[in-house]
Amino acid sequence: MTKRKSFRLGDIVKQLGGELIGDADVRIDQVATLESARPTDITFLTQPRFLPQLGQTQAGAVILGPEARDASSLPRIISANPYAYFARVSAFLNPPAAIEPGIHESAVVDKSARIAGSASIGACAVIGKHAQVADHAIIGPGCFIGEAASIGAGSRLHANVTVYHDCRIGARCIVHSGAVIGSDGFGIAKDDGVWRKIPQIGRALIGDDVEIGANTTIDRGALDDTVIEDGVKLDNQIQIAHNVRIGACTAIAGCVGIAGSARIGRHCMLGGAAMILGHITIADHVTVSAGTFIMKSIDEPGTYTGVYPFSSHPRWLKNAAHLRQLDDLAKRIHELERRLVQTERNHS
Amino acid sequence: MTKRKSFRLGDIVKQLGGELIGDADVRIDQVATLESARPTDITFLTQPRFLPQLGQTQAGAVILGPEARDASSLPRIISANPYAYFARVSAFLNPPAAIEPGIHESAVVDKSARIAGSASIGACAVIGKHAQVADHAIIGPGCFIGEAASIGAGSRLHANVTVYHDCRIGARCIVHSGAVIGSDGFGIAKDDGVWRKIPQIGRALIGDDVEIGANTTIDRGALDDTVIEDGVKLDNQIQIAHNVRIGACTAIAGCVGIAGSARIGRHCMLGGAAMILGHITIADHVTVSAGTFIMKSIDEPGTYTGVYPFSSHPRWLKNAAHLRQLDDLAKRIHELERRLVQTERNHS
Amino acid sequence: MTKRKSFRLGDIVKQLGGELIGDADVRIDQVATLESARPTDITFLTQPRFLPQLGQTQAGAVILGPEARDASSLPRIISANPYAYFARVSAFLNPPAAIEPGIHESAVVDKSARIAGSASIGACAVIGKHAQVADHAIIGPGCFIGEAASIGAGSRLHANVTVYHDCRIGARCIVHSGAVIGSDGFGIAKDDGVWRKIPQIGRALIGDDVEIGANTTIDRGALDDTVIEDGVKLDNQIQIAHNVRIGACTAIAGCVGIAGSARIGRHCMLGGAAMILGHITIADHVTVSAGTFIMKSIDEPGTYTGVYPFSSHPRWLKNAAHLRQLDDLAKRIHELERRLVQTERNHS
Repeated sequence: MTKRKSFRLGDIVKQLGGELIGDADVRIDQVATLESARPTDITFLTQPRFLPQLGQTQAGAVILGPEARDASSLPRIISANPYAYFARVSAFLNPPAAIEPGIHESAVVDKSARIAGSASIGACAVIGKHAQVADHAIIGPGCFIGEAASIGAGSRLHANVTVYHDCRIGARCIVHSGAVIGSDGFGIAKDDGVWRKIPQIGRALIGDDVEIGANTTIDRGALDDTVIEDGVKLDNQIQIAHNVRIGACTAIAGCVGIAGSARIGRHCMLGGAAMILGHITIADHVTVSAGTFIMKSIDEPGTYTGVYPFSSHPRWLKNAAHLRQLDDLAKRIHELERRLVQTERNHS
Repeated sequence: MTKRKSFRLGDIVKQLGGELIGDADVRIDQVATLESARPTDITFLTQPRFLPQLGQTQAGAVILGPEARDASSLPRIISANPYAYFARVSAFLNPPAAIEPGIHESAVVDKSARIAGSASIGACAVIGKHAQVADHAIIGPGCFIGEAASIGAGSRLHANVTVYHDCRIGARCIVHSGAVIGSDGFGIAKDDGVWRKIPQIGRALIGDDVEIGANTTIDRGALDDTVIEDGVKLDNQIQIAHNVRIGACTAIAGCVGIAGSARIGRHCMLGGAAMILGHITIADHVTVSAGTFIMKSIDEPGTYTGVYPFSSHPRWLKNAAHLRQLDDLAKRIHELERRLVQTERNHS
Repeated sequence: MTKRKSFRLGDIVKQLGGELIGDADVRIDQVATLESARPTDITFLTQPRFLPQLGQTQAGAVILGPEARDASSLPRIISANPYAYFARVSAFLNPPAAIEPGIHESAVVDKSARIAGSASIGACAVIGKHAQVADHAIIGPGCFIGEAASIGAGSRLHANVTVYHDCRIGARCIVHSGAVIGSDGFGIAKDDGVWRKIPQIGRALIGDDVEIGANTTIDRGALDDTVIEDGVKLDNQIQIAHNVRIGACTAIAGCVGIAGSARIGRHCMLGGAAMILGHITIADHVTVSAGTFIMKSIDEPGTYTGVYPFSSHPRWLKNAAHLRQLDDLAKRIHELERRLVQTERNHS
């Protein structure tokens, strides 16, 4: 480990904004949690419930919201959005490791591919015919870039990513290992009792500033294209089927599945393991809770949930049995109401 | 992009069957949706609800069912199964890209492996001892084929597929990137408080005409083999555990999990994210809805469903609380019925 | 296939313990199920319901529990835990294939990496700067080991595994193909309407004797580390988010997702496709049933379940509609009770 570079707190504020209270000369070299921070770290407080830990932190400085400006006597930065400020400080203190430009001698690059001089192609990567890799893009070891696919400027593909032919990844994207972009959609037609494959001739088009998690898969379109708009953030092991469109700045947590031709709006958030049925539309600014199955379109912004609450196994057994009789229970309630009205009438 | 090859509509019908109505000389070079078709495209109609779009399509020709033979004045092909016919036309117009046979100089092929002269081994692929790759098979860049594994004639493994030792993939299969065939099943035994691994000595045997989606995993058997029968179609990110058997022509959508030793019948359809418990049996011709958890065997053909319906979050909170009290609610209904009978009796 | 090496039953007992009944000279070369065993196989019985198959097995010997010691006249080994004994016999008869030590000439190993002389680096594997591979470790073809990552003694990474920079895998681990260790956690902060990435500066630390299934992903920590303790067993396609901690000897089945900062106890078992929400804690010795969504902490050992029971589709439709009205149904029951009390009172 080489010694980390440190910065004056005052210089950080000069660079990133915010209001400085206290000693501008304290030197900071890393971000850390309230509990694990050392005197050369800066930490942050986003929720009042962590105030006790703030009192005990060993951090050299702290990022606070305006409402907590006096909650600590440490050197501090006041910001309207402390979590976003922390993200900015962390990015400032942890720039991506420099990667040497150039094509590794073990990489296999078709001579018709266009690789920018400032791009980096890792060991054992394979780049197909007519593929393009733009300025400062980084293609990790073992990646495969198919024929006529293109990777935008400043994008980074970590090791062992696969991009199929004709697909396009925008600028400043990050794609994690094992992700597969542009595999065939699941298009089959029953023909005389057997499944016949429908060629998938659309593409997968990924916008700018998109992050794609490890082992996430994005299928190419059947006829038209699958589209991931700018600024979308995808966690690990997400499955996006053919002809899906995901609106700009939507964030999707791990293990989500989105079936064919679904359209997800902009600024949506899908919780982990949520599942979206095919051919439905979800409006902008919709939040889907983790584990929720969405089987029809959602037209209004808001939060939507549908998960079975767990309990101890014996209690679940007892309750779940009635689920299959809910219709019967409802009818019995209706019948009780009818008879009780009768009884009350007779009585009065 | 090179200019696409076009065909007379009459020649397409000569090749693929169906009844031609209208100008046989219109030239077609691609398939497209009703909305995006251009005059050199052929499109199709599978459901009456798309009739309005049919009236407005710019397509040069259209595939229709017998009931819709007069729904358009365009040159048209009448077929009993327009969707299957469309699949055939698309396959005809979009043959797989030709791949040059031969072993790429960067591939690492054990000298005991048997590679057909017409097969293609991609860059940086690794082929183990005694492995076999049959005629016209294509092994993509970065693939690994383990010791004594075999790949059937005409099968294509896209980039970065892994096939473990001794596994067998049949003829005319397609395996997408990131798929793993023959990894160890999850076999462990508790022994003095720690887990002891059970060697997985079975194989994974994949039939002919099987398609396997991106990042799908199929474990080898513990003692006997895991078997995927002919014509099975698997979407992305499916997990198939050890000793599962999947019957011929079954189609399984993305994100499905099938636990150990489950047996799925022939001609089944499993919707996305369905989960099948271990050691159960599902009859032929069963459809499982997306998101459904199957925890016991199904003996009869039909469609089976079990998903929690979503609602707005506050409404879900209100309703879900009662789920844990369903048994109590059922008892209260029963008690009401008992007392009401008593009241009615006393009254009469 | 080379001829398998066989062992006298007496020598197996000498090696592995247990009580031998019957002919010590029978020769055994493999384990098998009751149904498929041949005379040179040893089989086992773990549950009384398989007694009929025991009567018909062709096996040369059988492993039985003390309660079944006389259930067969075959040569037999009596063990308190027949399943664990079977695991031991199988491991004895099926030692891992020997892999030649050394670095394959097609592998790309940074000259600052430290590779033990007894380790094996497969074809087209790529090993980064300052990475370490310990004694007898095996790095499969196409693997990527990032900068300063370390792989412990005797661990085996199958083909196409990715380990990011600075991550640590302990001794005697097994990692299956397509697994990704140390990818960035899903850390983003909303900043002026767009998502800003939070650098993930923690590591993923994997203990000793851990098995990681195919295409499983384990993210590195955001600030602190993600930790998988010793003896944990992970099946395929599991997603483990940043800053999760999984206690020693916990076993997790396929398709499970564990959200950020969740803490799973020791000796837990999570069934397939279970989902664990972020920031919750699960006590030691907890079993979560397959398909169950855990949305709050569990403090007590036991088995917990929450899955929607499936039924035929029409029946599901009928019952599910009432789920959204459960609160209403409960209120109607309450109202009936109130009115019935009134009626009863008036009547008496």
